[in-house]
Amino acid sequence: MAHVAFERMTRDEIGALAPSAVAILPTAAIEQHGPHNPVGLDTMCCMAVARAAAEAAGPDLNVVVCPPLHFGSSLHHLPWPGVLTLTSHTFGVVVYELLDSLRMMGFRRVFVLNGHGGNEFLIQQTARDFVLDFREMHVVAGSYWDVAREALEAVPRDGGFSIPGHAGSFETSLMLHLDPELVRTEHIPVTGDTPLPAGLANVTEARDGDFLGDRPTGVSDDASHGTAELGRQYLNAAATVVAAQIREIAAAT
Amino acid sequence: MAHVAFERMTRDEIGALAPSAVAILPTAAIEQHGPHNPVGLDTMCCMAVARAAAEAAGPDLNVVVCPPLHFGSSLHHLPWPGVLTLTSHTFGVVVYELLDSLRMMGFRRVFVLNGHGGNEFLIQQTARDFVLDFREMHVVAGSYWDVAREALEAVPRDGGFSIPGHAGSFETSLMLHLDPELVRTEHIPVTGDTPLPAGLANVTEARDGDFLGDRPTGVSDDASHGTAELGRQYLNAAATVVAAQIREIAAAT
Amino acid sequence: MAHVAFERMTRDEIGALAPSAVAILPTAAIEQHGPHNPVGLDTMCCMAVARAAAEAAGPDLNVVVCPPLHFGSSLHHLPWPGVLTLTSHTFGVVVYELLDSLRMMGFRRVFVLNGHGGNEFLIQQTARDFVLDFREMHVVAGSYWDVAREALEAVPRDGGFSIPGHAGSFETSLMLHLDPELVRTEHIPVTGDTPLPAGLANVTEARDGDFLGDRPTGVSDDASHGTAELGRQYLNAAATVVAAQIREIAAAT
Amino acid sequence: MAHVAFERMTRDEIGALAPSAVAILPTAAIEQHGPHNPVGLDTMCCMAVARAAAEAAGPDLNVVVCPPLHFGSSLHHLPWPGVLTLTSHTFGVVVYELLDSLRMMGFRRVFVLNGHGGNEFLIQQTARDFVLDFREMHVVAGSYWDVAREALEAVPRDGGFSIPGHAGSFETSLMLHLDPELVRTEHIPVTGDTPLPAGLANVTEARDGDFLGDRPTGVSDDASHGTAELGRQYLNAAATVVAAQIREIAAAT
Amino acid sequence: MAHVAFERMTRDEIGALAPSAVAILPTAAIEQHGPHNPVGLDTMCCMAVARAAAEAAGPDLNVVVCPPLHFGSSLHHLPWPGVLTLTSHTFGVVVYELLDSLRMMGFRRVFVLNGHGGNEFLIQQTARDFVLDFREMHVVAGSYWDVAREALEAVPRDGGFSIPGHAGSFETSLMLHLDPELVRTEHIPVTGDTPLPAGLANVTEARDGDFLGDRPTGVSDDASHGTAELGRQYLNAAATVVAAQIREIAAAT
Amino acid sequence: MAHVAFERMTRDEIGALAPSAVAILPTAAIEQHGPHNPVGLDTMCCMAVARAAAEAAGPDLNVVVCPPLHFGSSLHHLPWPGVLTLTSHTFGVVVYELLDSLRMMGFRRVFVLNGHGGNEFLIQQTARDFVLDFREMHVVAGSYWDVAREALEAVPRDGGFSIPGHAGSFETSLMLHLDPELVRTEHIPVTGDTPLPAGLANVTEARDGDFLGDRPTGVSDDASHGTAELGRQYLNAAATVVAAQIREIAAAT
Repeated sequence: MAHVAFERMTRDEIGALAPSAVAILPTAAIEQHGPHNPVGLDTMCCMAVARAAAEAAGPDLNVVVCPPLHFGSSLHHLPWPGVLTLTSHTFGVVVYELLDSLRMMGFRRVFVLNGHGGNEFLIQQTARDFVLDFREMHVVAGSYWDVAREALEAVPRDGGFSIPGHAGSFETSLMLHLDPELVRTEHIPVTGDTPLPAGLANVTEARDGDFLGDRPTGVSDDASHGTAELGRQYLNAAATVVAAQIREIAAAT
Repeated sequence: MAHVAFERMTRDEIGALAPSAVAILPTAAIEQHGPHNPVGLDTMCCMAVARAAAEAAGPDLNVVVCPPLHFGSSLHHLPWPGVLTLTSHTFGVVVYELLDSLRMMGFRRVFVLNGHGGNEFLIQQTARDFVLDFREMHVVAGSYWDVAREALEAVPRDGGFSIPGHAGSFETSLMLHLDPELVRTEHIPVTGDTPLPAGLANVTEARDGDFLGDRPTGVSDDASHGTAELGRQYLNAAATVVAAQIREIAAAT
Repeated sequence: MAHVAFERMTRDEIGALAPSAVAILPTAAIEQHGPHNPVGLDTMCCMAVARAAAEAAGPDLNVVVCPPLHFGSSLHHLPWPGVLTLTSHTFGVVVYELLDSLRMMGFRRVFVLNGHGGNEFLIQQTARDFVLDFREMHVVAGSYWDVAREALEAVPRDGGFSIPGHAGSFETSLMLHLDPELVRTEHIPVTGDTPLPAGLANVTEARDGDFLGDRPTGVSDDASHGTAELGRQYLNAAATVVAAQIREIAAAT
Repeated sequence: MAHVAFERMTRDEIGALAPSAVAILPTAAIEQHGPHNPVGLDTMCCMAVARAAAEAAGPDLNVVVCPPLHFGSSLHHLPWPGVLTLTSHTFGVVVYELLDSLRMMGFRRVFVLNGHGGNEFLIQQTARDFVLDFREMHVVAGSYWDVAREALEAVPRDGGFSIPGHAGSFETSLMLHLDPELVRTEHIPVTGDTPLPAGLANVTEARDGDFLGDRPTGVSDDASHGTAELGRQYLNAAATVVAAQIREIAAAT
Repeated sequence: MAHVAFERMTRDEIGALAPSAVAILPTAAIEQHGPHNPVGLDTMCCMAVARAAAEAAGPDLNVVVCPPLHFGSSLHHLPWPGVLTLTSHTFGVVVYELLDSLRMMGFRRVFVLNGHGGNEFLIQQTARDFVLDFREMHVVAGSYWDVAREALEAVPRDGGFSIPGHAGSFETSLMLHLDPELVRTEHIPVTGDTPLPAGLANVTEARDGDFLGDRPTGVSDDASHGTAELGRQYLNAAATVVAAQIREIAAAT
Repeated sequence: MAHVAFERMTRDEIGALAPSAVAILPTAAIEQHGPHNPVGLDTMCCMAVARAAAEAAGPDLNVVVCPPLHFGSSLHHLPWPGVLTLTSHTFGVVVYELLDSLRMMGFRRVFVLNGHGGNEFLIQQTARDFVLDFREMHVVAGSYWDVAREALEAVPRDGGFSIPGHAGSFETSLMLHLDPELVRTEHIPVTGDTPLPAGLANVTEARDGDFLGDRPTGVSDDASHGTAELGRQYLNAAATVVAAQIREIAAAT
């Protein structure tokens, strides 16, 4: 066995696996993804990467995929409908308590696999706080596009869209691959917002979340370059790198 | 259209539905359910009732089923593995923030449909606090077995098991109906714990959660009376009553 | 000795009693009770039941009645004057800290005896949280009308009023018995609000507290059926059942 | 009318009085007071001063005495039995919420009359925070022995005990006057702890609360100089000054 | 060595000193100080007293002066520009966490030396809470003008200004001594606000902070009596008394 | 005027500048920096960059440098002495309240200039939360080495040390330039810890802070390549880029 869904096991099966397995805790969001994508996109993509990576980690390794935390930190999308969000403080507390639950049942290796940009600082800080409280825990936290950035950027693409962007060609590609009937192709915006100048990214984080003022379409870039085939390659690339990362965590003492 | 999954819609579709639709917010748990049931039982059953009730509410009524809050208040099950729990305070805050999200996107009618006993006081109190803060909201909150108790008790059964109990014949029946391969039938306990005397239920709530001390099997009653056919009837009965309740909420001004 | 007021003892007398005694922690409210009752009704009735039950528990049992927590969770009565309320979160924290104080001085058996409907979910949840943190504690929590419901309903009455209702014939009866000069009989409302349909009680809790919108008189039912004699019988019935419950707690290991 | 107990009025009576009346909010404690005094001493003395001052304020002034907050900040007395305490944070929040309740029902003038030394910083800080949030409120806060210090010191006494001290001759005198049968005279300690050098009082506050380490009897000074007659004079002196203070608050715009 | 700045030492130097040294934790404020003083006055004066007292404590005693907590509880000055404030709750938590940091690195003797009136209740309460949690700690807390009041009052002065007042002649004198170019002498107000009647100080604390309503100049008294020479004497007097206090703390077991 | 220290101005001078100026809020830490550097290194370096950048921003631009928040999130350094730390939650709240103070006095443009790695996620998240609450604010947040990374890396160096590292050659160089007598050169470690493989940086953040387990010297890399001349160039490079960033913020609407 390699991959198994946490919620489908019995208590005793989980108890037996916990000490040696790697748990993936998917954190995502329910929020607007442009006029064409379903609001569950972040959760769907994150779970798809988690499952594919767990499979790809190989048959000799037990990887347990937890149910996703559907609700992320999405206050910056609130002007649009479709946002089920926690405040940033609450989100961090929830992640901490879930890590603690995993610890109490015996897990020692956890990968907080994130699928929503607004959660990034919070999962990093929470993972850091948690391992300082419980030194026996090995926790890594990252967004799948950061973990696998090199491999994702290596997939040939047209149109110069950014990865991950928001609701643009990257995410739309994944959605077209995962569940094409959920993409309202007739509503795909042909021109997105102007992306932020790359050089300012480090210091303008605080404004980056303001979709209301800066990006009136709620989409970071032109989504029309997205294809199901690109999505397939992206999922593959992300899963391969995340799987390698999982094996590395499993190998840590 | 009657039933639709929140996460599969676009932001604009949700925005159009919100003012007139009823939103179901399922709250459940991931926790031990005896040696034979999957730890996701509460979420699976609650979602099944939510979807069936949304369908049964009829084609003229828009019912939106939100993604479940998988993680409940299950600290009393912590001695066993398989428990992903929030503290009681955090659980209440999360429910409040999700209700607030629904309000901000335009919903005015919400049914917090609960599938885990440990959440009951918390959803009731949170719903009460929320409507006092936002008088325009119509929120009802209840566990499906309480809402539909009369109908559930009316289904003929053997063995005198209690409804809902915990991981006993009632919940095992539902699981056998919903996904039989997740029930490890060879581990079904033939003798459960002695149920609490009915007359003391009101005043002994505080001890009722202590599965460690009082109920060493983690099961409230003999699960061997559970059958898939009973589960089918229970799902039906619950969905029918919840659907009626949904229509009532929809009719409220 | 049977009944003793906590505040009238010295530290050493309390320390000697604590390990074997049962402590009653009365939780109540200061809030409007119609145009005719004093705002302290809930505290007065709760203390009367606590004292009478402590007496009735018999001379061989030490029962210590704590000073009441006068201030409950009464935000739903705020539109009227006379409400001294805590927020629901603060109320729960206060009850937890008082339970902890009792634990630290040696008590192991506590009865949180409640006299205000708005506190119910909170005392139940707090008692549950507390005993999970301190397994050595035996805590039961309940409103006196729930603990003694069967006995209260058995008292013959006219007028079909509900028990407890709010400021209706039940509570007015108790007040007429306990301190008749505090009842402004000339202001007793002869027609109360329409009570909620019984069948919806479970799922409409969230709206039940809204006295402003739904019950413009602040009274749940016609108070004109209240008599001092009824009040005497109600007090008796409640005290008898609560006393039996106290003896049961005392007998628990 | 001059003095009236809040809890004995109806909602409408309170609503009519609130805008022009002065509300007294008594804050006290339930805690050890040596081997000879009841643990409720602080509440009993504080309420006695509140009622007597309300009377003494004169017939032309409406003074409403709220039910006391029995539970103070008494963590420093915890080693002894008999302490029902809140944490300092919770105590401050409770006082804030009670002030806010008084504000919402129309009161604009409040005297937080304190009867327990451990509450002093907290009532002062909370009153300050509260009036900054609600500029329309006039709130004064003080312990009765500070408000009336000059008059109390002017009462001739033997034995050089300090005012108020803790469970020493001052408080024991008040108790002997108020309810002599609650004083276990046979347990009155004839030698108390050495009082702190007066000059260090300002900067050694932090150690002052440590009754466990510094004052093994839990009494600040020799209680044997206490008499009922002294208690009568102290009550009189305190009530007279507090009454003058009440009239001053009433006269403020 | 006597005085040393915490931040200029290495970790190992601090570790070696901590068990035997006295740490001074200066708490101050950044807030308006009239039209003529710099907003950093409280921090500058507090640090000057801390350093001079550490020097004066003598060469045989290690006194470590921590970096100041610049930001105090100054909400009552908010109507004016120049206020960098924490809420009162946050301020208390910060002081607690800094005390805890000092404890964890080995300090057992700490003097919280305060230079802003609005912090007083909070440092006192926090120090009290802290030593109750950690009985091994010896913490004293006080404002330098309270600790040294007698010596400060003994300095001959004209004009009857109060000590410390706010931005009046006392503080202006200190500033003229410490850094005269920071005082805009042309803006010194010749008439200050009417000081509060001394007799009401205890019970009118809550209104004392309201500079907006009661003291439209933001200055407590006429600042025109301030001179650099007075400032020199005040600094001297304060440092001498604080140094004596430090030696006393050092001598405590 | 270009650069001015916040604390040296009067309230009215600040009020006049606020609407058009850029405020720099320096956040740093007091924590161990190896056996050779002072524990105040982060604050000293951050303030040096802030002041130099404010100067470099040019005479036509008002740049106000606030007093530093000395105390950062340094729990991961706690095993060593010399750490004055806030918990991560408290740190975030303090930054939020300081931003809010700047807002209330009229600033609209703030640069949170960070000088301690452990604060990064927290300043980013807090800035994000703050601008979502107050849309009129323009806040950027970044560590000076991230903002100026390209320029810093362009300074020729030997030894392959990382920027910034912790207490290694980069920070030691800055310290040797700023205040050489504070560097105990005889204690400079010649071999540091092995730096983390660059490729894992994104996903191993959670372990990166564990100086106790992973880096027993508390130093990230060999500090022996540090020179005062390198420090001068680094300060220059950082100040130049930060100044450019300040001008950009000033130019934003």
